[in-house]
Amino acid sequence: MSPMNRSVDMSADTWILTAQCPSRLGTVDVVTRFLKESRCYITEQQSFDDRLSGGFFIRTEFRPEDDGFDADAFRAAFAPRAAEFAMSFELTAPGTRLPVVIMVSKADHCLNDLLYRYRTGQLPIKIRAVISNHPDLEPLVAWHDIPYHHFPITPETKPEQEAQVWQVVQETGAELVILARYMQVLSSDMCEKLAGRAINIHHSLLPGFKGAKPYHQAYEKGVKLVGATAHYINDDLDEGPIITQGVGAVGHADYPEDLVAKGRDIERLTLARAVALHVERRVFLHDKRTVVFDR
Amino acid sequence: MSPMNRSVDMSADTWILTAQCPSRLGTVDVVTRFLKESRCYITEQQSFDDRLSGGFFIRTEFRPEDDGFDADAFRAAFAPRAAEFAMSFELTAPGTRLPVVIMVSKADHCLNDLLYRYRTGQLPIKIRAVISNHPDLEPLVAWHDIPYHHFPITPETKPEQEAQVWQVVQETGAELVILARYMQVLSSDMCEKLAGRAINIHHSLLPGFKGAKPYHQAYEKGVKLVGATAHYINDDLDEGPIITQGVGAVGHADYPEDLVAKGRDIERLTLARAVALHVERRVFLHDKRTVVFDR
Amino acid sequence: MSPMNRSVDMSADTWILTAQCPSRLGTVDVVTRFLKESRCYITEQQSFDDRLSGGFFIRTEFRPEDDGFDADAFRAAFAPRAAEFAMSFELTAPGTRLPVVIMVSKADHCLNDLLYRYRTGQLPIKIRAVISNHPDLEPLVAWHDIPYHHFPITPETKPEQEAQVWQVVQETGAELVILARYMQVLSSDMCEKLAGRAINIHHSLLPGFKGAKPYHQAYEKGVKLVGATAHYINDDLDEGPIITQGVGAVGHADYPEDLVAKGRDIERLTLARAVALHVERRVFLHDKRTVVFDR
Amino acid sequence: MSPMNRSVDMSADTWILTAQCPSRLGTVDVVTRFLKESRCYITEQQSFDDRLSGGFFIRTEFRPEDDGFDADAFRAAFAPRAAEFAMSFELTAPGTRLPVVIMVSKADHCLNDLLYRYRTGQLPIKIRAVISNHPDLEPLVAWHDIPYHHFPITPETKPEQEAQVWQVVQETGAELVILARYMQVLSSDMCEKLAGRAINIHHSLLPGFKGAKPYHQAYEKGVKLVGATAHYINDDLDEGPIITQGVGAVGHADYPEDLVAKGRDIERLTLARAVALHVERRVFLHDKRTVVFDR
Repeated sequence: MSPMNRSVDMSADTWILTAQCPSRLGTVDVVTRFLKESRCYITEQQSFDDRLSGGFFIRTEFRPEDDGFDADAFRAAFAPRAAEFAMSFELTAPGTRLPVVIMVSKADHCLNDLLYRYRTGQLPIKIRAVISNHPDLEPLVAWHDIPYHHFPITPETKPEQEAQVWQVVQETGAELVILARYMQVLSSDMCEKLAGRAINIHHSLLPGFKGAKPYHQAYEKGVKLVGATAHYINDDLDEGPIITQGVGAVGHADYPEDLVAKGRDIERLTLARAVALHVERRVFLHDKRTVVFDR
Repeated sequence: MSPMNRSVDMSADTWILTAQCPSRLGTVDVVTRFLKESRCYITEQQSFDDRLSGGFFIRTEFRPEDDGFDADAFRAAFAPRAAEFAMSFELTAPGTRLPVVIMVSKADHCLNDLLYRYRTGQLPIKIRAVISNHPDLEPLVAWHDIPYHHFPITPETKPEQEAQVWQVVQETGAELVILARYMQVLSSDMCEKLAGRAINIHHSLLPGFKGAKPYHQAYEKGVKLVGATAHYINDDLDEGPIITQGVGAVGHADYPEDLVAKGRDIERLTLARAVALHVERRVFLHDKRTVVFDR
Repeated sequence: MSPMNRSVDMSADTWILTAQCPSRLGTVDVVTRFLKESRCYITEQQSFDDRLSGGFFIRTEFRPEDDGFDADAFRAAFAPRAAEFAMSFELTAPGTRLPVVIMVSKADHCLNDLLYRYRTGQLPIKIRAVISNHPDLEPLVAWHDIPYHHFPITPETKPEQEAQVWQVVQETGAELVILARYMQVLSSDMCEKLAGRAINIHHSLLPGFKGAKPYHQAYEKGVKLVGATAHYINDDLDEGPIITQGVGAVGHADYPEDLVAKGRDIERLTLARAVALHVERRVFLHDKRTVVFDR
Repeated sequence: MSPMNRSVDMSADTWILTAQCPSRLGTVDVVTRFLKESRCYITEQQSFDDRLSGGFFIRTEFRPEDDGFDADAFRAAFAPRAAEFAMSFELTAPGTRLPVVIMVSKADHCLNDLLYRYRTGQLPIKIRAVISNHPDLEPLVAWHDIPYHHFPITPETKPEQEAQVWQVVQETGAELVILARYMQVLSSDMCEKLAGRAINIHHSLLPGFKGAKPYHQAYEKGVKLVGATAHYINDDLDEGPIITQGVGAVGHADYPEDLVAKGRDIERLTLARAVALHVERRVFLHDKRTVVFDR
């Protein structure tokens, strides 16, 4: 298991520019030349051109050389150059904390971990709300001064419940939804609305052990490694694009409940790592796969 | 980094018998024969005879076949047989939760992790008190309904402060003291009093980077792996017997503050793992080394 | 990825006794009492009683205290005691080198690794023959003075080819067949004949990516970890009991051929580890799972 | 332990441009603009600007869009632009195989590994000669059709022996010397001559356990992790800039000889990985540290 990503509160003067477009000669140049002309000092840069799918991806950390950097002017000036390459881009300001909503059921190991990193500034997020189909985790969330919404769900009330969820997402301006062991399958409609901005943690090394009770499946199969997979959700259950995976050794003396216990640390580290990668703009979605400029 | 130890609340009917003595023919037999005669059903057993140092170590998990198992009678009956082998032994009842005191300074990542595992029953401990030389972590501890003692320390007041600490340890009946990034060097006298029952986490792969600011030392040296070491304290700073170590990859772009951030996860997992190993009676002290019957 | 197992040439005086039987009170005692009475000095012992399946497993390393240890007499004397527990057991002499046959196709990374460990005494095996359906690896094998059998195979000639393989296994007295990337599916009949004594390496983290071209499957899926699984073969392709698994990180810039390249190290270490565990008598087969007393 | 680097035979049309210079605005642009103007298609790029030391580093993989790419013309045209930034640069052609000399003593695990990767094209090197102070490994090297030089060494003959070594290095045109467990300390003069182009493998996690018999030191200390460090040599023994490190778990039952055995796999993987990083131009030397653009 790798340690967490850097997870810095993005530092005082470091902007992030990310962009992607179809492969073509000059894709790097169009970005770096503009940064140079804008007197932006590049501190870290990674780019990748995918020979099989024909996609180009770049991530740049930079700091303006001069005072009074004007982000809007930067975007406006870069837009026509990007357009020539059919390039989408995003500029992220220093100190940006992404507004998020977390969804949980009863298990609290992932939630507790995210709350801790949030509270101590180790993850550049603002947790705007926690939503659960159970009331159990309210005290933990309340201690962190975060609104807790208990939206029970039954097969019959699922559309109404999802409407409630969606309302919270919209009202809070959440740009990311974290399914921190939510244990409910989202509807196709909800998956579509949250495409590219909802991260789920599944407690197995996907594509192994999809669906329910993966640790019990793992026990039956007698595997010697268990793991967790953080992925963007999509309409196909446990098939969304993978962001990162974690793994740990297990043995014959680990009964299913032991796998569950051992898995908790793997799950929460893997989910926290995926969230860090996402909010630091290190993840690019490309069809069913991701490009991740990790450190 | 390995996932946590099993960390079960020791289950309803599982007793643990641990023993150690000088190497000799029959050491295993004296234990297992007695268990058989006492109608104790062995579910897991590990033993090791150290050819270089001449020490024998055994750990057995068992459940009594009959109702009304009498621990005192068991101890009394086994004592003379053990004595023949100069064997010390310990019997631990199902569901035992070791009373502990945690010592911290200002950093809360290890404390938060231990509190979480304690609160959710993932570590069989009872946290009787938290002691700090700073007031900062009081709210976190208070939320868990645990007494918090703020004992400031200066070079001049060190003896008095340690007397206060010792008083808390005695009054709470703590059987283990966990130095969860306490950042103060204990006096020789204190080390002696706590011999074999105080675990420290040092934020380096000992014996590399002893002493202060190990991550800054690691940065200067340009290492590509950083780690943490959980060890019993002794009078020789950062030289106590090692229980377990954790590690993670780092790179050129990790400045000292990034190493500190990445190290937090390694430290808290390594410390939690060491505490789990200790309270599950998996660790045997033998001179300057440990025997650890891990799973 | 863990380093290799100890892989010692079992030392001058260390015997290994392994046994398994249905769960019952006294299973450990029947073994350890006999060893004591036989004046055998136990240096390492591990036992496990599987609460879910009701199986008991024990592995003991010991050295006789007296000269002239008589293995046949030991076996004869222990047999009736074991019989009372319906216990099967095996006694392995110091310095035993298991006779093996290795089967390969064209890929040589696993074969080369096994040959190296064999040549340098790091694996207690005697390679009696290498069998391949291709001629390519003959020079490598010849340099190690090991017979090389080129048995081509087509769907039509499969029964004849397997008869040739079986003849070599029998004539060489091989007690283990290692499928070191053999790339052919064995017939049900052959699987049955080799039950419990044929180890295969599959280049994925089973049960993920069964069957052909697992690295290409892994690329399509966009996983961030790839691995290898060493398992006993059975009639159900890629479903045999797992002995050990290895894993390594991959990323978006790893094209299928990169996964193949990165996988080689994982495969050969995982296979070598599985063989070491098997020949050191650390692996017990129990239905579809294994008990592995690892170090 | 991570799996090996990609270790491809650099593909048919991929050139590598690496450069470094003091930090300054425009460092990325001067490289990428020139590549664009030269109609070079960038497939992968990484850059890093070290805020603490003020150094800039960039590595680019590219393929020329047009036939008839003229490397000399490229270098000549880029040189004046680079000079403005005091930038040193290196252009590496597709399919380049670095000429190397390997130095060994008696242990063959690292040598065997390098020979295997060389023979199968998994490492883009040409092994021009193997030098040893012992005759033992001659047959292994001879089978690979590589010259083997046996240059015995004593304290008295060290200068003469090093002169012999240096002659081989010069005559073979070796651009890299790999100390694959050579076990001799090179003189200051030799270290200086080989600065930045000699990689050593030390069998510990430096800076822990410098000097002789690190596994025995590790046993004495009772560590739970052992490792290996691949580094450029310099005049200060075991203090050269670190390229990569590997690690593996050990326990109480591992005697010093077991640590030696377990360490072999860690050492050879770590050394092979360092060589791959170096020959793929992923490593930049900067004072006492390295910048490594790993994948």
